[in-house]
Amino acid sequence: MIFEPRYSGYEDRVRQSLCDQPLMSVIFGAVASSVAPGLVEIKVDVRSEMLQPRGNVHGVIASAVADSAAGYAAQTLIAEDADIVTVEYKINFLAPGIGSKIRGIGKVLRPGRTLFVCSADVYAEDDKNSILFAHMVTTMMSVPV
Amino acid sequence: MIFEPRYSGYEDRVRQSLCDQPLMSVIFGAVASSVAPGLVEIKVDVRSEMLQPRGNVHGVIASAVADSAAGYAAQTLIAEDADIVTVEYKINFLAPGIGSKIRGIGKVLRPGRTLFVCSADVYAEDDKNSILFAHMVTTMMSVPV
Amino acid sequence: MIFEPRYSGYEDRVRQSLCDQPLMSVIFGAVASSVAPGLVEIKVDVRSEMLQPRGNVHGVIASAVADSAAGYAAQTLIAEDADIVTVEYKINFLAPGIGSKIRGIGKVLRPGRTLFVCSADVYAEDDKNSILFAHMVTTMMSVPV
Amino acid sequence: MIFEPRYSGYEDRVRQSLCDQPLMSVIFGAVASSVAPGLVEIKVDVRSEMLQPRGNVHGVIASAVADSAAGYAAQTLIAEDADIVTVEYKINFLAPGIGSKIRGIGKVLRPGRTLFVCSADVYAEDDKNSILFAHMVTTMMSVPV
Repeated sequence: MIFEPRYSGYEDRVRQSLCDQPLMSVIFGAVASSVAPGLVEIKVDVRSEMLQPRGNVHGVIASAVADSAAGYAAQTLIAEDADIVTVEYKINFLAPGIGSKIRGIGKVLRPGRTLFVCSADVYAEDDKNSILFAHMVTTMMSVPV
Repeated sequence: MIFEPRYSGYEDRVRQSLCDQPLMSVIFGAVASSVAPGLVEIKVDVRSEMLQPRGNVHGVIASAVADSAAGYAAQTLIAEDADIVTVEYKINFLAPGIGSKIRGIGKVLRPGRTLFVCSADVYAEDDKNSILFAHMVTTMMSVPV
Repeated sequence: MIFEPRYSGYEDRVRQSLCDQPLMSVIFGAVASSVAPGLVEIKVDVRSEMLQPRGNVHGVIASAVADSAAGYAAQTLIAEDADIVTVEYKINFLAPGIGSKIRGIGKVLRPGRTLFVCSADVYAEDDKNSILFAHMVTTMMSVPV
Repeated sequence: MIFEPRYSGYEDRVRQSLCDQPLMSVIFGAVASSVAPGLVEIKVDVRSEMLQPRGNVHGVIASAVADSAAGYAAQTLIAEDADIVTVEYKINFLAPGIGSKIRGIGKVLRPGRTLFVCSADVYAEDDKNSILFAHMVTTMMSVPV
């Protein structure tokens, strides 16, 4: 599906918003590696404190990356004076999170006036492999700023 | 529902497991404030880096606390040589996360041989108020250690 | 939670609406056995064509009863010139649907101006037993009629 | 993803299983229009009793078609002496169900020894249009027959 943004500054806004969330940007080190209308990619370098006792990446990182990527995908399509909040999401964990990088791709499945349905795929990756770590489907809501 | 644990050390195990997850215990400062068969409470003191741009507690904290509380509720009911992994969860955000503390109560709705269905309620609280911040329903799986 | 309906005719409206859905009322024989503000109970008598090959009640019946009970629970709280549509739901099947009756209890967890978060528990029952067949959490939306 | 079935009779089995569910095959008139390893399509012709008061197709039909298509997609990949049961699913309703036919495509996202994560897209269609009516993500479990 081809989406048309409402104003030209949508990309700067996503990047600024991610910086304004220290949990994502400082603590997790999340970076918006790609921002397009209805499609946003977020990357995180895995650090030791993000691992579970089994040595795999903690599911919290997957859900944080997926929720952000999906929410920002929706944010690229709303007006400048609106904002996106997460109504709900469901996440399935498909494989152990084994890798040095986490990459989440969020996309808008259905844009609405008020509600956006989005999905996100999260991959655990290293130089050789990329495995589908988690899959999310979420309902986002556009609210006045 | 009254649940019977499989061995006496289930409480120590939950507390140790939480310590072994630095993301939860060190970065979020999560504490298991109550551990009973099929019922676990997790608390987090809110710090400034856990806030969203709007000044409310980030949804990631709610989902991390809910997932942990629900998963540990299941863990209290499995054998010593088994472990719990999260298959999937759904979380609804019911109100803005306004408060100085986050408290999650996880409980087992249906224990199985392999799968456990659990729920968790997450409250945002201060000295005066307690609001239902988020509600989770999750499928947990018992796996060999 | 105590809920206040917006107008006195909310109960008649639920009963009329169920009649106006032949899939629920005629094909499944669903009856609204209780209608209170934020809380609705729906019952279905099991017939042979509702069974799976294994002889248990088909999950479609559980989800239909849960969705209706939850949606009508929300409908008791909206204005007369609004209606409720289902945005999304998640349902967990907790036990085989063994019984001659299906009973679903829907309740509002969080009423909003636009969105309602509701849950529903579905029981499979006969004269002696009542087992928790399925559990649903759903997001409902109030829309203009 | 390319999937390898465990035995040659998987297609006959899906078709037989659908016939053995009178709720799907007789009452809803569901037909398995395509059965391939990990991918199953189910079609239903809309009849008047499947409509909501607003004249659109009832969400129950979408969830029944999606659950069947996803479950049968998983069933194509299991051994002959195993069966599939639905653990849980989440469904988002993306647009009103306007059309004379409902078509659901279920696919396996991640096959496991015990659990299968599947998705399904349900379209409402007539001669001219095809709209994405609903999207499901589900966890299926392989159990001994």
